[in-house]
Amino acid sequence: MPTTRSGFFDVRMRGFRDRAEVADVVRLLDERIHSLAAEDCALPEAGTRVVAADVRSEVAVPGFERAAMDGYAVRAEESFGAGPYSPLELRIVGESMPGRPFAGRLSAGQAVRIMTGSPVPAGADAVLPFEVAREEGGVVFISEAISPGRHVGRRGEDVEPGRTVLTAGRVLRPQDLGLLASLGVASVRVVRQPRVDILITGDELLPVGSKPEGFRIVDSNSIMLAALVKRDGGEARVAPLLPDRRELILEAMRSSEADVLLISGGSSVGQEDHAPALLAELGELAIHGVALRPASPTGVGFLGTRAVFLLPGNPVSCLCAYDLFAGRCIRRLGGRVPDLPYRTVSLPLASKVASAVGRVDYVRVRIQDGRAEPLAVSGASMLSTTTIADGFVLVPRDSEGFPAGEVVTVHRYDDAP
Amino acid sequence: MPTTRSGFFDVRMRGFRDRAEVADVVRLLDERIHSLAAEDCALPEAGTRVVAADVRSEVAVPGFERAAMDGYAVRAEESFGAGPYSPLELRIVGESMPGRPFAGRLSAGQAVRIMTGSPVPAGADAVLPFEVAREEGGVVFISEAISPGRHVGRRGEDVEPGRTVLTAGRVLRPQDLGLLASLGVASVRVVRQPRVDILITGDELLPVGSKPEGFRIVDSNSIMLAALVKRDGGEARVAPLLPDRRELILEAMRSSEADVLLISGGSSVGQEDHAPALLAELGELAIHGVALRPASPTGVGFLGTRAVFLLPGNPVSCLCAYDLFAGRCIRRLGGRVPDLPYRTVSLPLASKVASAVGRVDYVRVRIQDGRAEPLAVSGASMLSTTTIADGFVLVPRDSEGFPAGEVVTVHRYDDAP
Repeated sequence: MPTTRSGFFDVRMRGFRDRAEVADVVRLLDERIHSLAAEDCALPEAGTRVVAADVRSEVAVPGFERAAMDGYAVRAEESFGAGPYSPLELRIVGESMPGRPFAGRLSAGQAVRIMTGSPVPAGADAVLPFEVAREEGGVVFISEAISPGRHVGRRGEDVEPGRTVLTAGRVLRPQDLGLLASLGVASVRVVRQPRVDILITGDELLPVGSKPEGFRIVDSNSIMLAALVKRDGGEARVAPLLPDRRELILEAMRSSEADVLLISGGSSVGQEDHAPALLAELGELAIHGVALRPASPTGVGFLGTRAVFLLPGNPVSCLCAYDLFAGRCIRRLGGRVPDLPYRTVSLPLASKVASAVGRVDYVRVRIQDGRAEPLAVSGASMLSTTTIADGFVLVPRDSEGFPAGEVVTVHRYDDAP
Repeated sequence: MPTTRSGFFDVRMRGFRDRAEVADVVRLLDERIHSLAAEDCALPEAGTRVVAADVRSEVAVPGFERAAMDGYAVRAEESFGAGPYSPLELRIVGESMPGRPFAGRLSAGQAVRIMTGSPVPAGADAVLPFEVAREEGGVVFISEAISPGRHVGRRGEDVEPGRTVLTAGRVLRPQDLGLLASLGVASVRVVRQPRVDILITGDELLPVGSKPEGFRIVDSNSIMLAALVKRDGGEARVAPLLPDRRELILEAMRSSEADVLLISGGSSVGQEDHAPALLAELGELAIHGVALRPASPTGVGFLGTRAVFLLPGNPVSCLCAYDLFAGRCIRRLGGRVPDLPYRTVSLPLASKVASAVGRVDYVRVRIQDGRAEPLAVSGASMLSTTTIADGFVLVPRDSEGFPAGEVVTVHRYDDAP
């Protein structure tokens, strides 16, 4: 019997008995995978990190009444009646500069020269812009009336003390960092970034940077996966290439301390495909074989708290399985929206897409003349199709495909607006 | 006369005579700013970099005929007539593993056990999947006929030698890195990343990480600008805060060796606003004052080949001026699409937006119930409006605004799909 203690059916040289539904794999991940713990992150490093807990302001911003324009701090009522042909005069008694306020109090008939952002002196209640004033010999001539409060920013107008300025789950934007800085925040609680170990197995593989030679090919999955992990907010570590030897793969799986282990190659039903059996032995092989083209030889499991993904060695399958499953896990761990991170666009198909009921199809398409042109669906090994393609369409499980002209959702590989 | 030799009109304490049109600033940048030179980048560091020159393949991928499935390499014609109830037999004479091909040639009545990606032995012309075969005592029983060429990937099927696989301007995707690796590429020619120096001036400012105290506020622009520059593919360097002193600003401007200089604060018409006069003196102040709310006190100029942007100190204005002008310059220098990098969505306005003809307005909006709700337009100093907002709408120069219900283009601050 090829079934192990944990109920694992050894598919090597036999084929998958039963493929899991894509939706079931997604459900499994959503049930078992949750946000990692929070950690402190210094503000300058916090861009694009995910806020772990609501952030409340401890201060008012601004902490004082400030000028919203360059000009003159005045008592508004003293400008009433001023006009281009009947300017009124005020005596300039000092100036208020950013960080260097006017020390005294404004009395009747007085004005204080003031710069944007500077504290409005006591006694003043409006700022008259330079553009409607003329200064000469210590006197300012006002050619326009101004109402009380005009061009004065009140204390706390930007942020009141105690206000929640950012909520948990927020992916920090450039302006969020600015706002936090202005609140006096030096570091922020963010979700820890998932650590992801990438193990690539295959006797035939040469490391990235080598020339392919003879019957040996260059590993393309490690570099692709590392970039995908980075895009999804994880920290990728690529282990040295492993030959297809059980004990070496075992040792690598055991020694990983990452949150997620991506193993590419050796995940299918060939006799050198050790990873599924090892995972079943050491931990839990929850899924092996998915009703998904071209990534059916995908496995998902757990080693203690660590999620393990057995990704097909074929690069297109590897990309597909990463995006639908491993990426979802990494995005969830990092507190991000778990869904596919691609921009989508609805476009009519330029030609039909055939699929089989019972299976999800990942169909690469090119966008031309406002239509989505499916690329040849065969060739899970053809990475070039994913570089020629502008994106992909997912054909749902219950669909036999789409006729030409049908409007479909295209997930765009690029980041165009 | 306040006009300098270079025709610079000193606006300090006078106000802008004439504001440049947003479209003219954009035109100026598009005329004067071009892609930086190319440099080599090691493949593992090349993700999201911009390809500087077309990349052609020097090799065929794969370099040999390979199996597209796990199974048995056979002569297809010898499977003809096989069926579940009339299996045919072939003798297994060896195996072909990835990187370890079968050395001999397949003769009549023979099969070779083969793994996906392994070289197809001479003499064989198809791969029969394990799923339709049964192996016993050195013999494989075939229960399905297979046609010639089936499950065999031809040499060069992924990439033919000499093919252009990526063209100049491509922002490298994860799968592009994989493809380049498989071609034996170790490094790629990419556009150099723009180096951007960020100078923040203001006597009232405390450095990021400080608590605001008294009439001093914390600098929020440096950290925001650094994150924006990073987003746009540049390398930001934040200089220590500068007080509003002419000679210190002069020295900082002179000593920068960056491609772009962003100076925030001191760009307007206040008496402490030294940057415009200095730029006019040292180089060229091409633009000072833009018909753009809330970023009218923006300057654009050049110091030798270096682009200089005088950004308003008010954080919302700073963000607006960065995105429309400085970001455009940085994106162009880096070989990227110069337009605003935000995802856009078309939505009806929840309430009207008023603007003035002759000026572009940058209006922050919140997206609620499928409508774009304009936030109070005032308050260029209120950074919190850009964190509450989900995005912004640009009101064109020739528009008086939009009525409620009008469908507008919202540039989304977030990166949601």
